[in-house]
Amino acid sequence: MMAGLDDSRLFPMEPSARELAAALYQTVKDLPIVSPHGHTDPRWYAENEAFPDPAQLIVTPDHYVFRMLYSQGIPLEKLGVPSVDGRAVETDGRTIWRLFASNYHLFRATPSRMWLDHSFQHVFGLTKRLSAETADKFYDHIADCLQKPEFRPRALFERFGIEVIATTESPLDDLRHHRAVRDGEWSGRVVTAYRPDNVVDPEFEGFVENVAKLGELAGTDTSTWDGYLEAHRVRRAYFKEFGCTSSDHGHPTARTENLDQSEAAALFDKALRGACSPEEADAFRGHMLTEMARMSIEDGLVMQIHPGSFRNHSGGIMAGFGRDKGFDIPSRTDYVRALKPLLDAVGLEPGLSIILFTLDETAYGRELAPLAGVYPSLKLGPAWWFFDSAEGMRRYRELTTETAGFYNTVGFNDDTRAFCSIPARHDVARRVDCAFLATQVRTGRLDEDEAFEVAHDLTYGLVKKAYNL
Amino acid sequence: MMAGLDDSRLFPMEPSARELAAALYQTVKDLPIVSPHGHTDPRWYAENEAFPDPAQLIVTPDHYVFRMLYSQGIPLEKLGVPSVDGRAVETDGRTIWRLFASNYHLFRATPSRMWLDHSFQHVFGLTKRLSAETADKFYDHIADCLQKPEFRPRALFERFGIEVIATTESPLDDLRHHRAVRDGEWSGRVVTAYRPDNVVDPEFEGFVENVAKLGELAGTDTSTWDGYLEAHRVRRAYFKEFGCTSSDHGHPTARTENLDQSEAAALFDKALRGACSPEEADAFRGHMLTEMARMSIEDGLVMQIHPGSFRNHSGGIMAGFGRDKGFDIPSRTDYVRALKPLLDAVGLEPGLSIILFTLDETAYGRELAPLAGVYPSLKLGPAWWFFDSAEGMRRYRELTTETAGFYNTVGFNDDTRAFCSIPARHDVARRVDCAFLATQVRTGRLDEDEAFEVAHDLTYGLVKKAYNL
Amino acid sequence: MMAGLDDSRLFPMEPSARELAAALYQTVKDLPIVSPHGHTDPRWYAENEAFPDPAQLIVTPDHYVFRMLYSQGIPLEKLGVPSVDGRAVETDGRTIWRLFASNYHLFRATPSRMWLDHSFQHVFGLTKRLSAETADKFYDHIADCLQKPEFRPRALFERFGIEVIATTESPLDDLRHHRAVRDGEWSGRVVTAYRPDNVVDPEFEGFVENVAKLGELAGTDTSTWDGYLEAHRVRRAYFKEFGCTSSDHGHPTARTENLDQSEAAALFDKALRGACSPEEADAFRGHMLTEMARMSIEDGLVMQIHPGSFRNHSGGIMAGFGRDKGFDIPSRTDYVRALKPLLDAVGLEPGLSIILFTLDETAYGRELAPLAGVYPSLKLGPAWWFFDSAEGMRRYRELTTETAGFYNTVGFNDDTRAFCSIPARHDVARRVDCAFLATQVRTGRLDEDEAFEVAHDLTYGLVKKAYNL
Repeated sequence: MMAGLDDSRLFPMEPSARELAAALYQTVKDLPIVSPHGHTDPRWYAENEAFPDPAQLIVTPDHYVFRMLYSQGIPLEKLGVPSVDGRAVETDGRTIWRLFASNYHLFRATPSRMWLDHSFQHVFGLTKRLSAETADKFYDHIADCLQKPEFRPRALFERFGIEVIATTESPLDDLRHHRAVRDGEWSGRVVTAYRPDNVVDPEFEGFVENVAKLGELAGTDTSTWDGYLEAHRVRRAYFKEFGCTSSDHGHPTARTENLDQSEAAALFDKALRGACSPEEADAFRGHMLTEMARMSIEDGLVMQIHPGSFRNHSGGIMAGFGRDKGFDIPSRTDYVRALKPLLDAVGLEPGLSIILFTLDETAYGRELAPLAGVYPSLKLGPAWWFFDSAEGMRRYRELTTETAGFYNTVGFNDDTRAFCSIPARHDVARRVDCAFLATQVRTGRLDEDEAFEVAHDLTYGLVKKAYNL
Repeated sequence: MMAGLDDSRLFPMEPSARELAAALYQTVKDLPIVSPHGHTDPRWYAENEAFPDPAQLIVTPDHYVFRMLYSQGIPLEKLGVPSVDGRAVETDGRTIWRLFASNYHLFRATPSRMWLDHSFQHVFGLTKRLSAETADKFYDHIADCLQKPEFRPRALFERFGIEVIATTESPLDDLRHHRAVRDGEWSGRVVTAYRPDNVVDPEFEGFVENVAKLGELAGTDTSTWDGYLEAHRVRRAYFKEFGCTSSDHGHPTARTENLDQSEAAALFDKALRGACSPEEADAFRGHMLTEMARMSIEDGLVMQIHPGSFRNHSGGIMAGFGRDKGFDIPSRTDYVRALKPLLDAVGLEPGLSIILFTLDETAYGRELAPLAGVYPSLKLGPAWWFFDSAEGMRRYRELTTETAGFYNTVGFNDDTRAFCSIPARHDVARRVDCAFLATQVRTGRLDEDEAFEVAHDLTYGLVKKAYNL
Repeated sequence: MMAGLDDSRLFPMEPSARELAAALYQTVKDLPIVSPHGHTDPRWYAENEAFPDPAQLIVTPDHYVFRMLYSQGIPLEKLGVPSVDGRAVETDGRTIWRLFASNYHLFRATPSRMWLDHSFQHVFGLTKRLSAETADKFYDHIADCLQKPEFRPRALFERFGIEVIATTESPLDDLRHHRAVRDGEWSGRVVTAYRPDNVVDPEFEGFVENVAKLGELAGTDTSTWDGYLEAHRVRRAYFKEFGCTSSDHGHPTARTENLDQSEAAALFDKALRGACSPEEADAFRGHMLTEMARMSIEDGLVMQIHPGSFRNHSGGIMAGFGRDKGFDIPSRTDYVRALKPLLDAVGLEPGLSIILFTLDETAYGRELAPLAGVYPSLKLGPAWWFFDSAEGMRRYRELTTETAGFYNTVGFNDDTRAFCSIPARHDVARRVDCAFLATQVRTGRLDEDEAFEVAHDLTYGLVKKAYNL
């Protein structure tokens, strides 16, 4: 049926707006990809090995894909999702692929479908629709491609037009792959980001050992509060050697605290003894955001806060398959009261830049746009995770632009570990933004020449500036 | 003014999308009505008596209608709404009808207006607009119709193309009308649904007596926890004899609990002594949802949860007119934490199916679509009550489809006691879905052949499957 | 670039809907402005002095404008925002204006931009786009205009077609400017509104002294609860002498209480001793809303409730620049439980009219439309503050109309202190409403003749009726 993607996809339906959206898109579609936040594996770039089979590339690691299949009763075992409790799972790529393909209708009208179709077409040259009938043809073709040099990570990186990509590492990572890339001959720009959840959250598995290891890596005594803070400074400086321009913080809520140093030190001691109550752990996490903000003022790292995910919601799946298996569910998030301690402490400092994300869209218009529209330290991150979609991005612009404008936003994040979907994701964002701008112009809210300038800014200018890339 | 309904109503305005929506609609508009959840009176089908006068058919029992009139200062007494405190109310149908008709402008752009106009036109052949001027003409014509055999319940049931309709009864109902229909000669399919709120909620009026009566009907000793659970099993089995395929639960919140059996038994004892605190009553209700889910795994009934209504908000109206008088107001509802106990207990069981509804639209994108998009036991019920409307349905699709897809939804519920509005309500749902699908196609998010398949699924396939009808 | 505003701005893009929106707009665009709630300075109308320089007219006092500039790192000092801590701020109008103009791109696609462009064009005849290049030309031209008699407040009032405007004063205001207008020769209609926050909120700065002063002005003993209530009655009557038809209440939440009189009196005593806990202060505020509602039943003042703003969020800005500096952030607001005490006390009284506002858009569909759609005393105020915008107004209609209809809404409020923006704001509201109505007609949800009637009602009829103006 399908003869490839619709060239006008995601543009407004009204012809004059569609025409303008297309014209805007023409000016941004080939701009380089700047990917300031994501979860691709730095090993890919360092080692440049061929990707494994199509199922292991596209199905098994992508929680968007397997969660939808699981929701319709297809066991994770049959999708080859690795278990943690020793149960057997399917390992034959073709068997997994066929199961996926024969349920491809489940993805109708989802972003996964658009990303997958885009990847099939633009990365692998497949324009038919995936289905039970075409499953083997797709599998064979993709498997063949993956053996070729032009489908290795570095070649795809270049083909995708990636100017720079950030990965995300914990302070305990030795950054060996980043070192290999940096010191090697390949010119691709891969940078790291500082994600300290495992040494900042007293409830994180292995927190006490993690903090000890942090001290070893940093050469400071992390059994003391001052030594612990110093260790962060040391590791942040180390990360900066590998291009790091940002930190990232994935807390359950946006709570911040600004405790007295003695109080913070006491909490830290308690955390090291494993004695924090949930409330104390939360307070400590909250206080650490303020400490991280203080360090950002010193060292210039941009801070990202990604709050509000109820992680690993199903006890049964956690026991059987572990973390990150599609069972992270958004929850209501307050920002107004939560951020006040940090903002009262450092929110007016000229050097500080904090990029806020949300999984609670009601916060866009009510809290985030009003906050980012006045605090010089705050910027709005793009629509995130479940909302990294055509409708999600449209709502994001509609709910934030009138209060925060365009210039308190920071461009697009693909935030993905699905390498082949990167061009597709950026393409969706560019199209949705051009559609929004064209609609603004055709309803008399923006001049046409401004729309072209803004389209460039939303695609390229703002992300470079916001992330210092 | 009006010369009948616009054939293109609710379709997109852009011509090519409108044309496609119309084409999609052509393929589903005459499909049978499957009504898996509603509140029509089984007596109608059993006895097949003529409906009373137009006001008693259309105004007096419809809280959508009289709440709007009351909001503009028209006393409920004048609308013939029965009182519970003995105050006199208007009983003359024509007087009530004239008052309604002369205020028909209040319903502009509301779903009630569209349902009423559709009923007037399609059920009674009236295409002028109702107004003070046309009030008597409408009244006389409808009153005449109601005397004719072709306007009796069974004839309308057939004319409406109802394949099956579910009513809603408490476990204390003897289902005599369902028995009469089942054992009679009429072939119409009318099934019941198991709604145990009055024997599950310790705060329900008459709870203790209700539980005793439950025991009598089931032949078990409901003074014990085990006997009480067994009584539910017995009554569920009895309901299944009358076509029941689902239970329904109208709790104030979505809270669930999974208590130890001894703890549950203790709470039950306390409830039977009328000694539960509000918190304990809430915990007991929450635990009973998990027990009901366990029974569903055994007997296959689909579970519906309709939480979040603040019932009978006005003390004055409750005292004067009793329950269900338009004063049920939605409130914020959490699902993520609330459902976790039940989901951890049974949420991954293959046999279980739970259909979730909400009156808090913010939960669609943030909680419900992410939950239904991963838990195999969860499905999303359609837009409900205040959101059973063109805009409500559009938002529902826009907010849920990208995360949960189409196949974790269950088609349409009319959920009404307004019999003549049933075709109108299903028609609105079909039109809105076709409009959504046409927009998806014309913006390159869905292939055209897929849209036709999905239109059929949303109208007919999904509801049959989800409710085992 | 820009050659003036687009005549079709904010209308639907689809041609037939656009044409109908334009036709509707033609019938309402020149209707008089009825401004029932706002914050213009009555001194302007009383003294009719020339406005100061362009920066002091347009930049310095407008928190919409300077908050956006500040969010991008431009210090408030450089924008001439007066400080409260003695720090020096820019005083040269042209310098401020140039800074504003050279950052005009920050306002792209915001309501401020549309209001400003409309003011420049319609008030001052400037159709070019403001920018660094055109800054001086704008400044000189506007400065020249402001010296002319036809740009004095009364002349603009008349040119703007204002039929009546309400200002907002505290009970402690002597209304001298209103007296001067009333007793003078100018025929412009300027009325006051009763805003008692400073004598109702125990946490308001100077509450005790304010209550004492209230007693002096009213001639009652406000050291007693009865004398305090009587003082309100006296001042309300006094305000009515100056055209007042409404009171206004800006509480942190929508909480109401209906305490026993003895309990209320005890709380009042405690408040006068400065001894209220935050909870007690909140309860007292809540109770006073019910008392104000009782007085409204007696004296006919319409009650407005504007809840949910977290005022003066930044401690640093509050210390340096004081209140109302763009740091008021919306927060989540509950209405369903919050309003119940008041509604149970007086919510069904025929004489009472309460207009509800929100900064939490999620309440529109979930709480406010359902409440206003049934309680005869409740009406929905228009989209407020951050949502007084094209998208905000569209969402307001989409989220409220299906449940509350048009006739439980009250027309538009400009709610501004930016005098020159008044025509622009009303124009936006009229355009958005006409766009909404045209869309309703073109999607078969409203008849065309009805749309014309509703357009007039939304622009003129409803506000006159709701505010008794």
